[in-house]
Amino acid sequence: MSTDTETAPGPEAGIDPDALRDAEDRISPLWLERLRAYLDAGRADDVAAVMEPLHAADAGDVLESLDAEERLALVRMLGDRFDYSALTEVDESVRVELMDELPNADIARGVTGLDSDDAVAILEDLEQEDRDEVLSQLPTFERLSLKRSLDFPEESAGRRMQTDFIAIPPFWTVGQTIDYLRTEPDLPDEFYQIYVVDAAYQVLGTIPLDKFLRAKRATSIESLMNTNLVLVDANEDQEEAARDFERYDLVEVGVVDESKRLVGVLTIDDIVDVIHEEADEDIKLLAGVGDEDISDTTVDTVRSRVPWLVVNLVTAVAVSFVIGLFDGTIEQMVSLAVLMPIVASMGGNAGTQTMTVTVRALAMRELDGRRLRRLITREMVVGLANGVIFAVLIGLVTWLRFADPQLGVVIGLAMVINLIVAGTAGILIPITLDKLKADPAIASAVFVTTITDTIGFFAFLGIAGLWFGLF
Amino acid sequence: MSTDTETAPGPEAGIDPDALRDAEDRISPLWLERLRAYLDAGRADDVAAVMEPLHAADAGDVLESLDAEERLALVRMLGDRFDYSALTEVDESVRVELMDELPNADIARGVTGLDSDDAVAILEDLEQEDRDEVLSQLPTFERLSLKRSLDFPEESAGRRMQTDFIAIPPFWTVGQTIDYLRTEPDLPDEFYQIYVVDAAYQVLGTIPLDKFLRAKRATSIESLMNTNLVLVDANEDQEEAARDFERYDLVEVGVVDESKRLVGVLTIDDIVDVIHEEADEDIKLLAGVGDEDISDTTVDTVRSRVPWLVVNLVTAVAVSFVIGLFDGTIEQMVSLAVLMPIVASMGGNAGTQTMTVTVRALAMRELDGRRLRRLITREMVVGLANGVIFAVLIGLVTWLRFADPQLGVVIGLAMVINLIVAGTAGILIPITLDKLKADPAIASAVFVTTITDTIGFFAFLGIAGLWFGLF
Repeated sequence: MSTDTETAPGPEAGIDPDALRDAEDRISPLWLERLRAYLDAGRADDVAAVMEPLHAADAGDVLESLDAEERLALVRMLGDRFDYSALTEVDESVRVELMDELPNADIARGVTGLDSDDAVAILEDLEQEDRDEVLSQLPTFERLSLKRSLDFPEESAGRRMQTDFIAIPPFWTVGQTIDYLRTEPDLPDEFYQIYVVDAAYQVLGTIPLDKFLRAKRATSIESLMNTNLVLVDANEDQEEAARDFERYDLVEVGVVDESKRLVGVLTIDDIVDVIHEEADEDIKLLAGVGDEDISDTTVDTVRSRVPWLVVNLVTAVAVSFVIGLFDGTIEQMVSLAVLMPIVASMGGNAGTQTMTVTVRALAMRELDGRRLRRLITREMVVGLANGVIFAVLIGLVTWLRFADPQLGVVIGLAMVINLIVAGTAGILIPITLDKLKADPAIASAVFVTTITDTIGFFAFLGIAGLWFGLF
Repeated sequence: MSTDTETAPGPEAGIDPDALRDAEDRISPLWLERLRAYLDAGRADDVAAVMEPLHAADAGDVLESLDAEERLALVRMLGDRFDYSALTEVDESVRVELMDELPNADIARGVTGLDSDDAVAILEDLEQEDRDEVLSQLPTFERLSLKRSLDFPEESAGRRMQTDFIAIPPFWTVGQTIDYLRTEPDLPDEFYQIYVVDAAYQVLGTIPLDKFLRAKRATSIESLMNTNLVLVDANEDQEEAARDFERYDLVEVGVVDESKRLVGVLTIDDIVDVIHEEADEDIKLLAGVGDEDISDTTVDTVRSRVPWLVVNLVTAVAVSFVIGLFDGTIEQMVSLAVLMPIVASMGGNAGTQTMTVTVRALAMRELDGRRLRRLITREMVVGLANGVIFAVLIGLVTWLRFADPQLGVVIGLAMVINLIVAGTAGILIPITLDKLKADPAIASAVFVTTITDTIGFFAFLGIAGLWFGLF
């Protein structure tokens, strides 16, 4: 833990802060090697010197680039000089792993003085017991405000909110407010609007800073405030709050509790994270991967993926029973076995295309009655059009390959049927799940491909059996 | 076009603005019916009365809920009372369709006075000829600033930026600046920071409004400004700019041209749209749907999807040739044809899982050298683990179903091989595409499923042929 000034790197070896990231925008390997050398040598002051100037987001990226033991060594070595807000910028699995190793007293010191939303983001991952212990070691005011945030449901606006904000009475003037802002030491780090509240802390209006700045000192707050309020309920899901932000181009919004009291604010930086998470969630659910990060362990990854693969195994076995119905047919004409996956695969792809568009439109709340009817019609027509196009293509290919025009007609017919079914299933399945209040991203893919596989094999083998009299 | 005050709806028929959206957060059918009634009756003043109070985002949603002819009728009926910023909130296809029908003179009047970023968003979709005609009808200053934005590449920071901003010299004081803000009428509608520039308009520093508000009048701007600058190059891709916003929790950033002159600002509301678009693009590319909206016509939809389906047809036919190699084997043992899609389907799903996680990690720039190696190892181990789990499951199912333990062993072996291949292909394919500077979201899915299908069929039929001596 000694720092030897004699062997400290000179300016030529000094780490250029510009070189934190390489040309690809990833943390530079060179920068990391330096950091590792300091860590290995136990040179705490040097580690502090390179870590402290970093923005929390960059520090978080550095932590993620380190191994688990290196991360822990770094946090321990820096002690009180470690900025815990970096922990809000790492994957959940990295955070949980670190917190498990750190004493609760360190965590309590680390979260003291953080923005309340950052502190909550760190504490919400702790086990109940550890969380209570950490909370009990915090100053009273902080403890109470964090406890209140933690009492709101996970992924709610109340969990995400920042509990520091600027609230003033309507009878003040702009001048009084400016004087208050200039003298009051205990203000939020960043704010974009001022809240005008009554004695019960109910919001009467808001004033964006740019409007406020342009008002004369004598102007009354009441005359300046915007009363066309957008407020978010603390129990509301963060995704709904995000939709308000996006729709109305908000930068900050007040969060109110059941009795309409202002309890906190949500700012756009939190919402950007939510937007990202929700889009990410949709992508991953569509692919049958749960809430998974690249930092997850192998065991966690297997555990999260197996359920989806089990579902797929069950449906694949079910589909194989459909093929089993036609084993006699296949035995008489083995080229059917060679061709059958083509029809199924095209249906699966076309169905996935339609389903993806539908799932996204549902997520964006773009489908009202008329547009829904229009979309269903469009997708069925698209299915028919694609069906005809690909029936002709595969029909010709099959005719040439097997020198059998009749086999070409059979596979063409099966293709038309399956692509119409694919379009219809691709839109109706997510919509039905949505109506049943299930997340349409979750299970749509499995249902759609099961249907297109089943219909694909059944139509092709069935038509072939009838056409060639093989039953 | 007459407005008859006698038949105007009374307060009980008045449209409650709270009822614009239904419980599902979609535009309320009741509200739309009212609007349609006004449109059909040609009651322009009533249409204006319900449309004018709407936020541009809500007006955009209303436009999207109308049919194409109704939309055009509404815009024509409102004339100069129509707020063109609503057009920035609709799908591109809706916007283009409308602009095609409207005279250029109307468009020129409509975009005059809009924020420059909104005007650019509307003009960039016009044909070159129409665009020039509209520009020629704009006031000189607006024309020049829009032309400059339009000269930057599509999807660049320069295209997205707003060209109004507040720039002051470093030798001013806070008091002078406030006086300037209070008296200058021509300021941007909304701003979050003040730019300090030299005579050549090069940025010396920035001051966020909250910091500015809390400074005393006599404070010099130079002493107050933040010189740790984050600036965006106007030619930079909007996606890169979005990454800066996300990483550093920015709300506004200055945009500079080649000579480092401040030419505009990007604000978080534009960036939120970018984040959304980019995530949406990834989802759609993974599913083989291009840049498609639910408002696209049937013909456009078919045109955008056919190329992907053609690629899939080619790979599906190629895969069927692999099956064709084993037609003799299948002929001797038709249960192989019944079982073979199970191995391929499990491989396709497992590969898609890995691929999706990799594509997202690449999009977030999360994969540096070490983490990449760690992820590759993890995915291969996960593939092996899943392979063993599902080999046992499908082996038992097959044994029971066909009363043939040997067939169970064969399908189990094929499953292990295919799931390891799936994990490896799922990670290596997107990474290779990324290294080749291609978007890994585009073609990964096709490559991965082609490989898992090929290996799935080949391993199962090949092992079966060897095991049972069917060659």
